[in-house]
Parts: sequence; structure tokens; C-alpha cells
Amino acid sequence: MTDLFPFQVEARCPDTRARCGRLGTPHGSVPTPLFMPVGTRGTVKGILPEQLERIGTHVVLANTYHLHLRPGADVVRELGGLHAFMGWDRPILTDSGGYQIFSLRDITHIDEDGATLKSIVDGTPIRLTPEATIEIEHALGADIIMALDHCPADPTHRIDVEIATERTTRWLERCVHTWRDSGSEQAGQALFGIVQGGAFEDLRRRSLEATLQHDLPGYAIGGVSVGEERSQSLKAVESCASLLPEDKPRYLMGVGTPIDFLDMIAKGIDLFDCVTPTRHGRNHQAYTSFGRINLRNQRWRTDRSPLDESCDCPTCARFSRGYLRHLAQTGEMLAGMLLSVHNVRFFHRLMEDARAAIRRGTFGEFMARTKEALGASEAQRCR
Amino acid sequence: MTDLFPFQVEARCPDTRARCGRLGTPHGSVPTPLFMPVGTRGTVKGILPEQLERIGTHVVLANTYHLHLRPGADVVRELGGLHAFMGWDRPILTDSGGYQIFSLRDITHIDEDGATLKSIVDGTPIRLTPEATIEIEHALGADIIMALDHCPADPTHRIDVEIATERTTRWLERCVHTWRDSGSEQAGQALFGIVQGGAFEDLRRRSLEATLQHDLPGYAIGGVSVGEERSQSLKAVESCASLLPEDKPRYLMGVGTPIDFLDMIAKGIDLFDCVTPTRHGRNHQAYTSFGRINLRNQRWRTDRSPLDESCDCPTCARFSRGYLRHLAQTGEMLAGMLLSVHNVRFFHRLMEDARAAIRRGTFGEFMARTKEALGASEAQRCR
Repeated sequence: MTDLFPFQVEARCPDTRARCGRLGTPHGSVPTPLFMPVGTRGTVKGILPEQLERIGTHVVLANTYHLHLRPGADVVRELGGLHAFMGWDRPILTDSGGYQIFSLRDITHIDEDGATLKSIVDGTPIRLTPEATIEIEHALGADIIMALDHCPADPTHRIDVEIATERTTRWLERCVHTWRDSGSEQAGQALFGIVQGGAFEDLRRRSLEATLQHDLPGYAIGGVSVGEERSQSLKAVESCASLLPEDKPRYLMGVGTPIDFLDMIAKGIDLFDCVTPTRHGRNHQAYTSFGRINLRNQRWRTDRSPLDESCDCPTCARFSRGYLRHLAQTGEMLAGMLLSVHNVRFFHRLMEDARAAIRRGTFGEFMARTKEALGASEAQRCR
Repeated sequence: MTDLFPFQVEARCPDTRARCGRLGTPHGSVPTPLFMPVGTRGTVKGILPEQLERIGTHVVLANTYHLHLRPGADVVRELGGLHAFMGWDRPILTDSGGYQIFSLRDITHIDEDGATLKSIVDGTPIRLTPEATIEIEHALGADIIMALDHCPADPTHRIDVEIATERTTRWLERCVHTWRDSGSEQAGQALFGIVQGGAFEDLRRRSLEATLQHDLPGYAIGGVSVGEERSQSLKAVESCASLLPEDKPRYLMGVGTPIDFLDMIAKGIDLFDCVTPTRHGRNHQAYTSFGRINLRNQRWRTDRSPLDESCDCPTCARFSRGYLRHLAQTGEMLAGMLLSVHNVRFFHRLMEDARAAIRRGTFGEFMARTKEALGASEAQRCR
């Protein structure tokens, strides 16, 4: 299995638990720590794949539930699988639909066997079981596939969290069986298990131990970026991260802000995803080395400088804040396009800089300096 | 003046009045016949400037009324002029706002001195006189600037057409004065006069003769792509085209479909613009060598081929009809982005092929063959 799903830690930083690694996939190997932009329905909103390549995107996420709904895994398979479908030859990770069980909980019924979600398109029931999820992910053909998990609505409500966490454990066992039996494992699809447990350290640990039983190619920490008690969850995650095996990639799902990234890299996290760079981009917010700015603000009206002097993205190379402000004011598509590509590049560059700092052995210093520069504007949280 | 605004006819076709030329501007010379995509507010909707360059866009349109409203000509000037503002180093043409006097006629008051339009943003009155228009266009800094014209609401209503046409003639005189006095002419901005006259051949001819009095760098035919009686207007345009001077570029405004282009190139028209490639792109329609197709159609669901086998655009190089159909179905931004770039490239390629056919002396044959291939699906009309 080690041959099918290689992961190597290449550098460690003495002052934190931060590490640099390389993760192999059927579509090439990628460096960690890594930010992976979200392309729910098979497109990172508003960004051309060729631009993603240019700004250094290594892995793109897609979503099993959404692609199962439209166009359907059978259609994606007929069109040559997710890579051919999206015109994306680099690695892809498919999220399982577990997040939709959480986010669409008002129209979802969960039982021991699986979950029945209503289609957001026409209301028809969509059945997701652990077995069905892995089969859909197998048909889609991503490089990394996520197990189906049950993410509790409120990470601080102990009984609910306990039920959801134990169900996640039982569902993982069924996911692993299907993964091994369906040919997904042999095809080189790396199954990642998801640790739940909400804000409770003991539940996190119990979930972690059960997940590790399966000796999977990678491990994810879920249920963090949601709910009110985020700081509690983050704390539980920290202690959890220290218990994950050294020789496997660690993926913190759906978190978050640049400052979260730095904190979590310092705890030994390798993989991140978040919708914020593209969502904020469409809402005319830009990440900069001096914090987040709102492009609709009158102050940029006649500003000839780029979004961020220190940025090397195609947007900053060609356009002024004044022009971007005009596009935002008039609601032009190009505003979202240009700001999204800038924001994703910002996240990638943060990771590139973090990797360089880890290799130099100065991540702690880099983290302190970067946090200070990003400043108070990053009190805003992901999602 | 010939030195400031060079135009040379380089080839003529014996079987039609079609011609190939080259038009010089401060931002480089461009070949004719030419299609110019529309970037009303300083952006061709959904297309990155770098993509426009790649697919062979030579000139981009922008709109005086819309840019005057937001962000204002003073802001554009402070940001370095329209070219720096848009990040577009190739030629730009600004339409005058005359079209808005027509299209926003329900909220416009016209008098002899000029027109008062309501702002579409906040309802405040926007005054456009011939003098103000040229001054705004001077501040914007495009390479080709259009005179302010009065385009009648109904091209077949003789009295209205006559009033509007004679007013256009008087306004042109004032435009020319401001152009000469303001430094616009000396800055190399080519002022084009617009021939009106609706569906009436005698009014078209009268307007043409008055316009030619000014010996301008170029001439446009306006008021064609509007109203019910389009075929009548087109007929009037044809006879008008034959009376325009041989040594000046001829621009047919806002027309139209690929078949119109071929017909009008055959009558000696050099320049075209139209919003259809980007508008249809956003509405999930694609131009192909076998006619226009609707990407939402179920028939493309599992189609692995590109939009058009014979197309060399970035969309056709990378994506299948099946994927584009999925993007259209799910309303993803990328659908409009990819279809718009394909459609604009389709229009450019038509012009490139037309230019090659003219140089070979076989434009008539090329036109007949292309019309047949485009077929009945092109009965649909522009705007």
C-alpha cells in the first residue's frame, strides 16, 4: 500500500511541529503543506483551469454529492472520468457528501444505513450510503477520495456529537470494505478517513483511534470550521493532530483563514481546503499581505497600484485597484474572475512561503511575522 | 490628416465589392474586415484581456455613456486613460452614447442642444451634448471615437427619421469643431461620423453627403440593427455603402450575424461590432461552423467532442460539449466564460477567413460556401 500511496516527510522545523512533505498520486506528486481550491461542481468558480495551473494549484477539490446530482457519476465516467471532464490533468480530491449531510441537514434524513438527502435541484430523494459513496467516487475517478462521515450539527452538544462520531466510525468500516472490494484501492484512489468528535477531546481521540485501525493512505480532521464554538473545536483538533501518524498526510477540512493555516501548519497539518478565496473573490474581497480589503470601497477609486505590491498573480500584473473597484461597482463578471484568481494565488503563496520557511528551519519566526502583517483584519472567519 | 489616421486598401476582390485593408492607430495597425468585441463598461464580459489577445482581438469597443456614468471620465483619466485602465494595449473604439439615446429613449429627453438621459444607476440626469461627448471621449483616450448621433426609434417612420437624421448632421458639425479644438484630433483620436437615415434611401444619401463634407478619418453607418424593418434598413445601407469614399474605413454599427457580416463585407464594409458573441455565450449558445447550438440541450450530455471540431479556440482545445453542458445546466460562471471566448474567436476566424478569401480573389465563392454551412440556424438576428 505504501507503494500505491507514497507520502514522504522531507523536512521538519525544530521550533514547531510544522513539516514539509510530498504526496504521490496517479496524477503526479504534490508538495505539502498545500492549499487545495474548491471546485464543488467540477469547476473552481470563475477561474480557468489554465489559470489555476499558472498560479500553482496542485490539487482541486470536487464534491461527490453535487456531481452525483448533476451530471451524475455515470455521465462523468462516460465523458472519460473527472480529469478529462474538467480538463484538469493534475490531482483531484472528492469530498464525500458528508458535509452536505451537515449543511443540508434540514432536508436530510439520517439512519444507521446511510443518509437520504433531498435533491437541491428537484427535491427527489438522494440516497447516500458508505458503499454508494465509494462507488460514486470510484466512478468519478479522483486521486484522493473521502469516506462518508456524519458531521454533527452542533460540535458542543455531547450526545449528538457522540452519536455522529460513532456512526462515522461504523460508516468508515463499510467505506473501507467497498474501497478494497470495488477496485478503487487498486486503481490508486487514496481513501482518507475522517476524524470527528466535535469540541470534545476524548471523543476526538476515540474517533482517531478507531480511524487509525484501518491503516489508510491519509487522515482528515472534520467538523471544525462549523458551529459557534469554533475555538473549542480548534483546540480539540490540535491535540488530535499530535496523535496522527508521522508517515501519513493530515488534512484539516474546510479551514479557513490565513492565520488558521499558519497555526495549523505549526501543529503538523499538511492539507487544507476552503471556499473563501473564490467566495470572497465573487463578493469583491481581496486577501493582501496587509489584510483583507473590500474592493467596493470608495478609497480605491483612483488608486493606480495593484491589489498587493508583493503579489505575483496575473491580476496584480495587469490591473489597478481603481479598475477592480470599477468592475466591482458595476457588477461585471471580470471582477469576480480577477479577484478569485488573486485570492487563490494568495493562499498558494502563503503555503509556498511556509514550505520555504520550514525547510529553512524558521517557520516559527515566519509565522509570527506573517500574522503581525495580516493583522486584525483577519479576525473574520472562514465560512 | 492622412498621416495621423492612415488607412490603406491592400486587396480587392473582383467578384464583389469586398476589400482588405489596414487601419493605423496610436496603438498599432489592424487588418480589415474586422470584428470588434464590445466591452461596454471597459470589459468584454467574461473574457480576460489576455484571452482576447490570444484569440486575435485587435480592437475592443467601450461606451462613452456607461463609462461617463461609472467610474467617470475623470477617474479613467486619473487611472492613466482607457488603455491603462482596462489593461488593454491594443486599439480601443468608444461608442458615443448615441445608441443609449435610442435604447434608453423612455428616460431620455432630446432637444436641439443635446440629450438628457437619466442615470441607470441613481436616476440623476446625465447631459450629453456633442461638445461634452467629444470631451469625454478625449478624456477616455480611445483610438477611434464616435460622433454623437440621434438614432430614430422607428427607422420606417419618415418624419421622425428625418428629424433625427438632420439633427445628427448638425450635431456632427459641433462634434468636429470640438474634436479639432480640444486637442483630440492632434492626439491621434480618429473621429468617425455616423450616417443615419433609417430605411429611406434618399435620407441615407442626404445624411451621407453631409457627413462626407467633414473629410473625417472614417465613416459609420448607424441605425441598422434596430427596429422591425431591418431588411429595409439593410437595403438602404447597401446603396449607402457604395457611396462611401474608397480611401476611408467603413464601419457598420451593431450588425450582426455571421451571414450579415458576409453580406456586408461583400458590399465593402470594413468594421463590425456586436454584443451577440458574449451575450449568447452567457446564455449558453455557441456559434459553430454548422450553425448555432444551445448547450443546455440534453443531446450534448455525454458528448466528448469539442464544440466545433474545426475551431482553434482555447475552449475547444480543452473541454467537451458534455462538460460545457454540465456547466450551463448548473449555472456555473465558467460556462459563460468558455462559451464567450469561443464565440468571439468564431467571429474573428470568420473575418480572418474572409480576409484570406479576398486576397485570393475568391470571396464570392467563400461567402456562398460559408452561408450554406451556417445554414438555416442563422435566421436568428442580432440584438
